[in-house]
Amino acid sequence: MALPETVDLAIIAIPAKFVASAVEECGLKGVKNVIVISGGFREVGTEGAKLEYNLIQIANKFGINLLGPNCLGMINAEIGLNATFSVVSPKFGDVAFLSQSGAFILAVILWAQKTKFGFSKIVSLGNKAVLSEADFLNYLAEDSATNVVMLYLEGIQDGRRFMETAKKVSKQKPIVIMKAGKTESGAKAASSHTGSLAGSYEVYKAAFRQSGIIVAETVEELFDFALALSKNRKAGSVAIITNSGGPGVMASDAVEIHGLKLAPLSSETIEALKKFLPPSANFYNPVDILGDADTERFSRAIEVISEDKEVGTILAILAPTAQIDFNKAVEKVLSVEKPVFCCFMGIDESCEERLIKNRIPNFFDPTRAVKAISAVDQYAKFDFSKKEIKKFEVNKKEADSIFEELMKLESRFVGVEGMKLLECYGINTAPWGMAKSADEAEKIAESIGYPVAMKIVSPDVIHKSDIGAIKLDVEKGEVKSSFYEIITRVENYMPSARIEGILVQKMVKGGREVILGMKKDPQFGEVIMFGLGGIYVEVFKDVAFRIAPLSFEDALDMIKSVKSFALLKGIRGEKMYDLNSLAETIVRFTQLSMDYPIAEMEINPLKVFEKGCIAVDFRMLLEVKK
Amino acid sequence: MALPETVDLAIIAIPAKFVASAVEECGLKGVKNVIVISGGFREVGTEGAKLEYNLIQIANKFGINLLGPNCLGMINAEIGLNATFSVVSPKFGDVAFLSQSGAFILAVILWAQKTKFGFSKIVSLGNKAVLSEADFLNYLAEDSATNVVMLYLEGIQDGRRFMETAKKVSKQKPIVIMKAGKTESGAKAASSHTGSLAGSYEVYKAAFRQSGIIVAETVEELFDFALALSKNRKAGSVAIITNSGGPGVMASDAVEIHGLKLAPLSSETIEALKKFLPPSANFYNPVDILGDADTERFSRAIEVISEDKEVGTILAILAPTAQIDFNKAVEKVLSVEKPVFCCFMGIDESCEERLIKNRIPNFFDPTRAVKAISAVDQYAKFDFSKKEIKKFEVNKKEADSIFEELMKLESRFVGVEGMKLLECYGINTAPWGMAKSADEAEKIAESIGYPVAMKIVSPDVIHKSDIGAIKLDVEKGEVKSSFYEIITRVENYMPSARIEGILVQKMVKGGREVILGMKKDPQFGEVIMFGLGGIYVEVFKDVAFRIAPLSFEDALDMIKSVKSFALLKGIRGEKMYDLNSLAETIVRFTQLSMDYPIAEMEINPLKVFEKGCIAVDFRMLLEVKK
Repeated sequence: MALPETVDLAIIAIPAKFVASAVEECGLKGVKNVIVISGGFREVGTEGAKLEYNLIQIANKFGINLLGPNCLGMINAEIGLNATFSVVSPKFGDVAFLSQSGAFILAVILWAQKTKFGFSKIVSLGNKAVLSEADFLNYLAEDSATNVVMLYLEGIQDGRRFMETAKKVSKQKPIVIMKAGKTESGAKAASSHTGSLAGSYEVYKAAFRQSGIIVAETVEELFDFALALSKNRKAGSVAIITNSGGPGVMASDAVEIHGLKLAPLSSETIEALKKFLPPSANFYNPVDILGDADTERFSRAIEVISEDKEVGTILAILAPTAQIDFNKAVEKVLSVEKPVFCCFMGIDESCEERLIKNRIPNFFDPTRAVKAISAVDQYAKFDFSKKEIKKFEVNKKEADSIFEELMKLESRFVGVEGMKLLECYGINTAPWGMAKSADEAEKIAESIGYPVAMKIVSPDVIHKSDIGAIKLDVEKGEVKSSFYEIITRVENYMPSARIEGILVQKMVKGGREVILGMKKDPQFGEVIMFGLGGIYVEVFKDVAFRIAPLSFEDALDMIKSVKSFALLKGIRGEKMYDLNSLAETIVRFTQLSMDYPIAEMEINPLKVFEKGCIAVDFRMLLEVKK
Repeated sequence: MALPETVDLAIIAIPAKFVASAVEECGLKGVKNVIVISGGFREVGTEGAKLEYNLIQIANKFGINLLGPNCLGMINAEIGLNATFSVVSPKFGDVAFLSQSGAFILAVILWAQKTKFGFSKIVSLGNKAVLSEADFLNYLAEDSATNVVMLYLEGIQDGRRFMETAKKVSKQKPIVIMKAGKTESGAKAASSHTGSLAGSYEVYKAAFRQSGIIVAETVEELFDFALALSKNRKAGSVAIITNSGGPGVMASDAVEIHGLKLAPLSSETIEALKKFLPPSANFYNPVDILGDADTERFSRAIEVISEDKEVGTILAILAPTAQIDFNKAVEKVLSVEKPVFCCFMGIDESCEERLIKNRIPNFFDPTRAVKAISAVDQYAKFDFSKKEIKKFEVNKKEADSIFEELMKLESRFVGVEGMKLLECYGINTAPWGMAKSADEAEKIAESIGYPVAMKIVSPDVIHKSDIGAIKLDVEKGEVKSSFYEIITRVENYMPSARIEGILVQKMVKGGREVILGMKKDPQFGEVIMFGLGGIYVEVFKDVAFRIAPLSFEDALDMIKSVKSFALLKGIRGEKMYDLNSLAETIVRFTQLSMDYPIAEMEINPLKVFEKGCIAVDFRMLLEVKK
């Protein structure tokens, strides 16, 4: 390092094996910022992983902010710095882009050239050995050149840190994310419903939602949403103005499909429109100014509409008729103070560039325009207020000693006997006892009262009802015979099953069955699942996920987010089920899941009544013991 | 008409009131083809409608093929005929485009100029006074210049004729449709589940599916699917080849999400790839040839992959790295015999034009490419074989006399008493009788056997269970008291309700509840609905629609197309329900619905057993009497 003075940024693009010593030299020279473009690290296998580990040690030793390795580098378009191996530089704009794929950045830069999309910063995250998306998010939150952050990610290592950062940042400026690797579910052979349903993308989506991040499902959505959010933070009701009936209808369809509302125009607005629009025009939303409209008619109409208090966002659709002068139409649109989205179909490049420069999105497809508006609406509706995470007073001492006992057992699997933990955490359970003999079964039944349910307890019998290893509504005098019947059935169908006993439990009649689940995710920790029991989970996969911890409001929101929520509100003359008690149970369940090393846990069913909830069955998988 | 000779085509663009006489002159002169561009007809109100009616009379008198009025005209790009008021003409290609919106055609032509999309014919359908989409479809089926037909429609007048034509045409060449006006459901206040669920777009979608038409939900899909189908008729399993991991992952995600399959590469293919790909490449599908791949590596890889028998379609993804020469990559792709879809990201216009000229779709967004492939797959999977529509032998004579009686009644609404019609059509019903007194109720119960169900019969009480006007499991000795109880409840809750009596019906225990419905649609006639009973219909809206008549296979396919079908296959150790009997019941129900002037009809519930089905409740709305 023969440089006379310390540099701000070193860019290293030499073979992998020489990188570590180069970074060390930087450290010795006091260089605090290093980009390692070189590949040949973790991504190529064990040898590379060792090189990367070494690199991290050095960076940490000198406190170096290291980007990469195995990345494209970084662009700061504001100051014209292109520290990548892309020969093309993007235009300066207000969208920052963080990407885990370098090649994708190359593609995006070329595409942005065509579409005049501008960027503030572009960062290729590479292997994220030292600096990760969370570090850059923190920076971008304070970056005045950036109005919206666009993220392309394939995976997140520290999910909790990412969420905390994203929550903070998204309050200040919108984050739009596209996550690849959605269907690669590592949960195919899980031991519970929660396990099999909590595929990684579902968990990511829950984390994004909770962090106030807008999710894009495709590349096009990623850019459309980012552009829409770079200027607009609120959508409100939508007014459509069009010179062509068809695209107007497409747009109204999309407004309903994407959960937005058409603004009801005031009678003043309608009167004002009637003054200059031809009588066969449509004065109601969507406002059709007809195919023979000239730019003047369009301009007057958009002006009138923009003054209506009910109108939040205007979608202006113009087909390229001979009467329309797009230069003037663009001019007019720029003067409107409310958010405007355009479908100026078939306009030339200079007009399009002018719109995009002023951050007014223009689409050929009305549906795409409406989707972009709905992203703005989604951002506006995020609730960024901080919810109190209440910790319930629980019988921690008893729970500790129960857990200690469970950890001593050979099996990681805990069945209904784990319900004692629920009781410590203030969750009601149906009274039960475990019987090793018919006599014992009868004794238990006598003490808890009839009728009872009787079920086999065996780590090997998962679907008990399939082999008739459950008897319901067992009355006085039937307990002993039921005991023998269940044992015989299990021995017939599964001779090798280890039988631990038979559970005798008070029959819990009525109520709506729901499932509460928890699965520990390697990135995000405790993931909580909620759904209605039986076929709603199994057939419709109608469940909601949230990352722990949860406030009472989070739990309530989670309950309301499943489609089958209608059944909890009570249909056909039923009373409403006790949502408050259910939400409280979810919070208590979450608290339990965070207090102990549990890999998976499920109350299935939890019965919800008009007043209160009762846990009927339970299973749990302990974390691997150290 | 001072022309010396008869012309092939007259184009009329004069004020509406002069159009009729101009067309008449054409007729007198023997002109057989007329385009009326002029507006001012049906679309402006009653006066215009009269003018249009007059126009139709004249056209019919002279046997004139009249396009319009109120249209943009027509383009035949093959012979360079532009009979529209668009100054720009599209390139010649093999896609025909029929559009109900003229302004949309203007936009499309300009957009196509940019994207080099080519058309064979473009027709602006206008008011469809004489010629409609069905006429043009018939023509296009035989048009050798057209490989695929793209339709933009807002409504269809004669749905049955459209379906018949489309069925015939789509066997020969694909039809892709976008239908606007999806959410405008006129069925909000209908009197049955079928009525409220059979919104017009659902009916259209059913008709399209049954006619072998591919449905596009957005404008982009319309063009993407048309281009994809202009060359390809079969998709098969998909092989992805990429020089960039990220977009490769996006594409694999999309393959799973859109119901396609990744081709399992043969061991020969994998061995062949290993010979020249670097060891850290991915040899399995998606094949990642890595970011440092040059065009030579890409070319060898795509060649090897295209020779694998398991591969149906190749999706080639290339990010614009320095090593890739897109000219050569395009060259290579053109030489591959299997269907290829490209995501050549950031390529220049000349390369893109070359791809599109050779009808190879190129996308920036991998998800969009995969969706286009899935449209091809959907077309390939349409079953165009003609199914026999079996007519069952029914007791038509008795049905006729029952129906005659019903038509004499004052109310159009028919309740459970209509079940007699089902019996005539060979559909099993639970034995029942109608009681006007408690004594009569007991007599009926005695004759059909206990236990029985008892329900109020009143045109005013729709949701009987909400007010407790149903008693189930009524045993011997309880009939009379139940009779009084129901009457009292109805009188308390709905004092004004007209009570026709109390239905006493044999209790039908067990079985899975389904709903069969029929609604007469103004465009398509009898629309049949199927779904599982209760919340599956009410909360999940999980229902299927088909346009009558139905073959046995159609009915079976309909049953299998609902999500909750899993429940009929039998979950958790249940036996499979009798799908054959259910399908037969649907066909018989359909036959009944077509034989009489019925507006709506519903069996709810129909109970399906391991063997057979039984109709438990029924309602019907007769058509307005003449």
